[in-house]
Amino acid sequence: MSLARRVLAETLGSLLLAATVIGSGIMAERMAAGNAALALLANTGATVAALAVLITLLAPISGAHFNPAVTLVLALRRQLGLKEAGLYVLAQVLGCCLGAVLAHAMFELPLLQVSTHVRTGPGQWLAEFVATAGLVLVILGVRRSRDAAWTVAAWIGAAYWFTASTSFANPAISLARSLTDTFTGIQPRDVPSFVLAEVLGALAALLTARFLFPTDAIHGIGRAPVATEERSATVQLSAEMKRQ
Amino acid sequence: MSLARRVLAETLGSLLLAATVIGSGIMAERMAAGNAALALLANTGATVAALAVLITLLAPISGAHFNPAVTLVLALRRQLGLKEAGLYVLAQVLGCCLGAVLAHAMFELPLLQVSTHVRTGPGQWLAEFVATAGLVLVILGVRRSRDAAWTVAAWIGAAYWFTASTSFANPAISLARSLTDTFTGIQPRDVPSFVLAEVLGALAALLTARFLFPTDAIHGIGRAPVATEERSATVQLSAEMKRQ
Amino acid sequence: MSLARRVLAETLGSLLLAATVIGSGIMAERMAAGNAALALLANTGATVAALAVLITLLAPISGAHFNPAVTLVLALRRQLGLKEAGLYVLAQVLGCCLGAVLAHAMFELPLLQVSTHVRTGPGQWLAEFVATAGLVLVILGVRRSRDAAWTVAAWIGAAYWFTASTSFANPAISLARSLTDTFTGIQPRDVPSFVLAEVLGALAALLTARFLFPTDAIHGIGRAPVATEERSATVQLSAEMKRQ
Amino acid sequence: MSLARRVLAETLGSLLLAATVIGSGIMAERMAAGNAALALLANTGATVAALAVLITLLAPISGAHFNPAVTLVLALRRQLGLKEAGLYVLAQVLGCCLGAVLAHAMFELPLLQVSTHVRTGPGQWLAEFVATAGLVLVILGVRRSRDAAWTVAAWIGAAYWFTASTSFANPAISLARSLTDTFTGIQPRDVPSFVLAEVLGALAALLTARFLFPTDAIHGIGRAPVATEERSATVQLSAEMKRQ
Repeated sequence: MSLARRVLAETLGSLLLAATVIGSGIMAERMAAGNAALALLANTGATVAALAVLITLLAPISGAHFNPAVTLVLALRRQLGLKEAGLYVLAQVLGCCLGAVLAHAMFELPLLQVSTHVRTGPGQWLAEFVATAGLVLVILGVRRSRDAAWTVAAWIGAAYWFTASTSFANPAISLARSLTDTFTGIQPRDVPSFVLAEVLGALAALLTARFLFPTDAIHGIGRAPVATEERSATVQLSAEMKRQ
Repeated sequence: MSLARRVLAETLGSLLLAATVIGSGIMAERMAAGNAALALLANTGATVAALAVLITLLAPISGAHFNPAVTLVLALRRQLGLKEAGLYVLAQVLGCCLGAVLAHAMFELPLLQVSTHVRTGPGQWLAEFVATAGLVLVILGVRRSRDAAWTVAAWIGAAYWFTASTSFANPAISLARSLTDTFTGIQPRDVPSFVLAEVLGALAALLTARFLFPTDAIHGIGRAPVATEERSATVQLSAEMKRQ
Repeated sequence: MSLARRVLAETLGSLLLAATVIGSGIMAERMAAGNAALALLANTGATVAALAVLITLLAPISGAHFNPAVTLVLALRRQLGLKEAGLYVLAQVLGCCLGAVLAHAMFELPLLQVSTHVRTGPGQWLAEFVATAGLVLVILGVRRSRDAAWTVAAWIGAAYWFTASTSFANPAISLARSLTDTFTGIQPRDVPSFVLAEVLGALAALLTARFLFPTDAIHGIGRAPVATEERSATVQLSAEMKRQ
Repeated sequence: MSLARRVLAETLGSLLLAATVIGSGIMAERMAAGNAALALLANTGATVAALAVLITLLAPISGAHFNPAVTLVLALRRQLGLKEAGLYVLAQVLGCCLGAVLAHAMFELPLLQVSTHVRTGPGQWLAEFVATAGLVLVILGVRRSRDAAWTVAAWIGAAYWFTASTSFANPAISLARSLTDTFTGIQPRDVPSFVLAEVLGALAALLTARFLFPTDAIHGIGRAPVATEERSATVQLSAEMKRQ
C-alpha cells in the first residue's frame, strides 16, 4: 500500500471523525433545549457510528489509527517505522483541525474559533488516562478480530459516559476541539494536561498488553483467531507488517 | 436474477425506506413534546435499523441501491448498464414517493402533501455534499464485506447528526420528502440544490475511491451480490497483498 | 430435536419476549416523567435487544418463532407439520400471557389486568399489515443468514416508530398486551382487528417472497450463503427440515 | 494460559465494568436534569457497550465471567476447578469494589461511600432472579458462538429496563454498588437478598440448560475460550443434528 495512500487515509479519516464529533455536538446542543444528557447521547451515537464506519473503511489501507497515541504505541512496538509514524501524526493533527473547520462551515459558524470550555482537574486527567489506556488495550487486543471496528467504537461510546472528561482519548482530537467554541470544545490551556494523560494512558496499556497478551504480541489476541479465513488474513497481515 | 425482480426489489426497498424515514419522523414529533433532539434521535434509530434490514434483505437481489446517486456512480463505473440504471432510478423515485403516501395513510394524514419546511443555504448544501460523498465512498469501499449493511446504515445515522442538513444524501428521498409537510419535509423549491449537492458529492467520492481503492480487486467489477463474492474477496485481498 | 424441547423453547422465548415488551413499558413510563417519546425509545431498545438475544439463543432449538403469524407461514410452506404448528401457537399464546403476568409480578402490580388502551382505526390496521408483512418477508429472506437475529430485531425496532400502531406484528403478543393496563396495553375489543391485519400481512409476505426469492424458497436467500461453514449449516438445516 | 494472567483479566474486567456502571450513572444523573429515564438510558448504553468490549477483549484469557454467579455455575458444571473458582470470585469482588473507587476518583467524589438507595421487596427479588437466570442461560447457550459478547451484553441492556430492579444480576456488582451513594447505589442491608435471588436464578438456569441444551457438545466441557471452539462447535452441531 503506497505511503501516500495511507497518509491520505489517515487524513481523511481524522477529518471526518473530528467533523462528526464536533458537528454532532453542535447539532445536538442546538436541538436539545438545554438538556445536556440528551445532547451527549446524540453526540455519543454519532461518534460511535462514524468511528466504526471509518475504521471498517480505512483499516485495510492505513490501519485506521486517527490517533497519535495509537500511532505512538504501534511505533514503540516496531509495527510502524519512525518516518511513517511522524507522517501519520501530522496527517491526524491536520485532518482533525480541518474537521473542526468543516463542521463550522456546515453549520455556518465562524470557521476559526478558540474554545472557552474549561476542562481541567485531577479527576478529568485520571479519566483521560483511563479512557486512553482502555482504548489502546482494546486496540492491541482485538484489532485483528473481525469485530474490531465496532468493539473499538463501543469503548469510546462507553467512555463518553463513564469518564468525567467525556473521553477525548486522542491528542489530535483534543487539539482540534480547542478550535471550536461549541458543545465539544476545550480551552487551549487545558489541552496539554489532557494530551499528557492520554500519552501516559497509552503507555500503561502497552505495558499491560505485554503481560495480558504476551506470546504473540504481533499476532493480536492471545490465542488463535476465530476462523480459517481469518487465520490466513492474520498471517497475511503479520507478514505484511514484517515487511514494513 | 431477472430484471423485473431486481426492479421490484429497488421499488419495495425505496418504498419501505421512505415510509420509515417519514413515518418515524411523524411519530417522533407527535410524541416528543416539542423536544427536537429527542424526535431526531428516534428518527435516526428507525432509519438506521430499517436501512440495515433492507440492505441485508435486498442486496442479494438488486444490490440495494435505493438511491439514484449510488446508481449513477455504479453506472459510471460500468457495473450497471444504462437501461438498468434508468429503470433503477425510476423505481427509486416511484418507491420513495409511494413510501411518503404510505406513511401518511398509516398516520391518517392527507395522502398528498407539499412540504413548507425551508432547508437551504450554503451550509446545508455543503452538508449534503459531505454526507453523500461519505455515503458513496463507504458503499464503494465496504459493499462486498460482510458488515456492509450495518456500516452503510451507520454512516447515515452519524450524518443525521453531524451534518447541518440532517443528511438526506439521496435524490429520491429528497424528492419524496418534499411530498410531506411533517418533521422530515423539505419544501419543493429547496430540492434541486440538495440534489445537485448530492450528485456532486457522489462524483467526488467516485474520484476519491479511484485513488484510495485503486485495484479493481478490492472494489469489484460486477454487480454481483455481497454473498457470493465474500470468499473470492478474501482471495483477492490476499493476492493483492502479495503483489505489494 | 425432541418436540417437547422445541415447545418449551417457544414457551420460554415467548414468555421472556412479552415480559420484556410489557415490563420495559412499565419501567419506561414510570421514569419518563410524561415524555412518551422517551418512554417508547426505552421500550424499543429493550424489545430489540431481548428479541435478538432470544432468537440467537433459541433458534437452534425451535426456530425461535414466538409468533403465530410466523408459524402459520412456515406451516403453509410445509416447513412445519400441522400438529407441531398447533403446539407452537399454543405455546406462544400461553408464553406471552405468562409474560404479562411475570411483568406485573416484578413491578408489584395486580397480576391479572384488562387493558383500556384504545388502539383502532384503518391507519393502525394498515400499520399492522405493513409491520407484519415486513417482518415475515425479512424472516423468510434472511433467516438462514448469520445476522438473522439482529436483522429481524432491527425491523421490529424500526417498525415501533414508523408505523402508527407501534408495530405489535404478532397475534400472541397482541393478545397478551390486552392483559396489561399499562404503557403497552391494547383494549381486548381492539385485538381481533389487529390479529386479522397481522395475518393478512403475513400472507402478503408469503406471496411476495415467492416472487422475490423464487428458486430456493426452502434454502433461504436467493443465492448461496455467505461462507463455507454457513453453507454446510444451511445444508444441515434444510436436511433437518426435510426430515420433519 | 497462566492462572495469574487469568485472574488479572477477571480483576481488570470487573474493575472496568463496575467503573462503567457506576461512573456512567454519576455522569448521566448529573446531566439529565432530573429525568430518570434519560439517565437510565445513558447508563444502559454505556454498560452494554463496555460489557461487550470487555467480553470480546478478555474472554480469550479468562472466559470473561466478571460475575460470581457465572463462576459458580461453571464450577458446578466442572468447567472450572474449585481453587480457580475461588480466585475468580475474589478477583471479581476486589475488581468491582476498586471500580467503584475509580469512578468516584474520576468524578472527584469521596472515594469511600455507603449507599442509602433502598432497593427491596419481592418484586425486585423476583426481578433479580429472572435477570440472572436469563443471563446465565444466555451465557450457557451462546458462549461459544461468534456473537456471544454482544448477545450477553444485549441481555443485560434489556434487563436494565424490563426488570423492576434494573438488573444487577451479579453479586460482585451488587456488593460494589453498595459502596456508592449515587444513581446506581443500593444500601448494604438490601444486598444479601439481591445476592440470594441472583444465586437462585443462576441455579435455575443451570437446570433449565440441562433440559434445553442436553448434549455437552453444544455447551462444551472445557474452559476453552470462545475463539478456538468456533470451528469445532460447527462440527459438533452438525454431528448432533445427524444423531437426532
